[in-house]
Amino acid sequence: MNDINRQFLLAARPSGMVKESDFEYRASPVPEIGDGEVLIRTSHISLDPSMRGQMENRADYVAPLQIGDVMRAGCVGTIVASRNPDFPEGIQVGGTFGMQDYCVSDGRNVPFRVFDADIDPTTALGVLGGTGMTAYFGLLEIGEPKPGDTVVISGAAGATGSVAGQIAKIHGCTVIGMAGSDEKCAWLTDELGFDASINYKTQDIGAELDRLCPNGINIYFDNVGGEILDLCLERIAMNARVVICGGISRYNATGPIPGPKNYFNLVFRRARMEGFIVLDYADRFPEASAVMQRWIDEGKLKQQATVIDGFRELPKALIRLFEGYNTGKLMVKTS
Amino acid sequence: MNDINRQFLLAARPSGMVKESDFEYRASPVPEIGDGEVLIRTSHISLDPSMRGQMENRADYVAPLQIGDVMRAGCVGTIVASRNPDFPEGIQVGGTFGMQDYCVSDGRNVPFRVFDADIDPTTALGVLGGTGMTAYFGLLEIGEPKPGDTVVISGAAGATGSVAGQIAKIHGCTVIGMAGSDEKCAWLTDELGFDASINYKTQDIGAELDRLCPNGINIYFDNVGGEILDLCLERIAMNARVVICGGISRYNATGPIPGPKNYFNLVFRRARMEGFIVLDYADRFPEASAVMQRWIDEGKLKQQATVIDGFRELPKALIRLFEGYNTGKLMVKTS
Repeated sequence: MNDINRQFLLAARPSGMVKESDFEYRASPVPEIGDGEVLIRTSHISLDPSMRGQMENRADYVAPLQIGDVMRAGCVGTIVASRNPDFPEGIQVGGTFGMQDYCVSDGRNVPFRVFDADIDPTTALGVLGGTGMTAYFGLLEIGEPKPGDTVVISGAAGATGSVAGQIAKIHGCTVIGMAGSDEKCAWLTDELGFDASINYKTQDIGAELDRLCPNGINIYFDNVGGEILDLCLERIAMNARVVICGGISRYNATGPIPGPKNYFNLVFRRARMEGFIVLDYADRFPEASAVMQRWIDEGKLKQQATVIDGFRELPKALIRLFEGYNTGKLMVKTS
Repeated sequence: MNDINRQFLLAARPSGMVKESDFEYRASPVPEIGDGEVLIRTSHISLDPSMRGQMENRADYVAPLQIGDVMRAGCVGTIVASRNPDFPEGIQVGGTFGMQDYCVSDGRNVPFRVFDADIDPTTALGVLGGTGMTAYFGLLEIGEPKPGDTVVISGAAGATGSVAGQIAKIHGCTVIGMAGSDEKCAWLTDELGFDASINYKTQDIGAELDRLCPNGINIYFDNVGGEILDLCLERIAMNARVVICGGISRYNATGPIPGPKNYFNLVFRRARMEGFIVLDYADRFPEASAVMQRWIDEGKLKQQATVIDGFRELPKALIRLFEGYNTGKLMVKTS
């Protein structure tokens, strides 16, 4: 056990692309726990696009971080000290423990989750973690896939998109994923079983969508926003569902960001565009995890994590996330 | 009975605001009917924003008009000759009979509707017609109003908006309407029972919405698009429904039309934006008409029609629609 608690704090609100200087490293003492509390030693810290929004001073679905706050982050770790009989020492837990080695919890903050000891932490943080849950509830609850549907997923090689696409396949859909390199595109089709993929950096997206979706798009699972959202709205099928999961093209933008000019196609196609926040489904995470674990065991759901080693790499890792470095779930192993 | 069939044809595809020269007047012979057909003499012709889109060469939910086609239009009229035993002479009918005095039908084109003889044609074409049905199904099926909801309606003094707002009141909602003159605004609150109104031409829309919707907007019923859609998206409440009914600010635009830049609030507010086409509900028009007629009889649903006299006024009337001339339903009485 370290005798210090390494932390990254929000040092400055980012303008445009997040920079290393937006973070401040601090070595703090390991916190003490009170009655009913546990001390968690984090082993893996998740990097997620939504972190960018929380660094801004903007009240969204969670309160914005303040300058000097520990960066918020999803983590898995182990309880190393406990004064709470419900959560004994040694168990593996997950939650929003932040960019730090140690975190104190009373087990009541949402989501606080207990994982079996035999679950690999990369699985707990990935397919069974926040991004996996986002894929599960976003696709199934908002997308409502039906067998035979054509499902298009942007940011498809990311942690959420790669899982959402596989869940769509499990539900009998034809799945087309967009990603930013030929390697990622090949991974989608060859490893994950997507029906097709589009390299959005090198291919004519509209022409490829026309070719691959001759009957239009029944579900567009959007992780990126921007021009790709418009190209998909242009091609939605009757009664389509456009699931707004993320908007990574927006997060580091500096100027005003145009909206989807083709939104009016929602009328002509009797379609809907809907957003969601995965935390609303927190009480159903155990149910979803059981289903996802079964799919993993059956070989229907594959996972990949890009694991960067070393706590001090956290700021760089977040920047790399926005640069498209990762395939699958991006996380930092703290030690 | 005239011995000619006056018609307005599409003469040119409009660029920007529709002009009188986009129409061509023609005097045609009164058509003959075949076996199973009826001849309808139109008494009232509806002017609707959607006509503008049909004048363009763009396949939407209905095929575009071709140059030389009779302008498509909703009408009510009387059967003046019949060779179809299901639809005898003398009954009042409604349907898309076009900008012409006479129309032949076999009674199978959708929507072909029979109205009781004692229903005023302005009611048949208004509250019980296409715009009334649009208000009914758009608000109830897509908006899903609940008692206590705050409902904001743009284009609220128009044929659809004025009815949608009253239906929302009947369902126990707080209703705020936007319109383009103080007279229209007063009509909404004083005559129709809206809780408040906003003159979008003279008032600070955002500030008024903040004042009138302290808990956000649960349903935004959008007839206009553009900046007002964005101002409302900015203020949606949790789980809000944004009903895309129309986009009148778009129809006569010349340049590219920006999309709603605040669409991403659908995520933060777990909200949806959804379009619909009223013709999809055609088989439920009789059910809706019965309900609406009951509301009219009970004094809960008021109607107003702006009736322009004279067939030859039709092109001018459509232009006036886009200029905001009408309060309630705009129609032309043909003779």
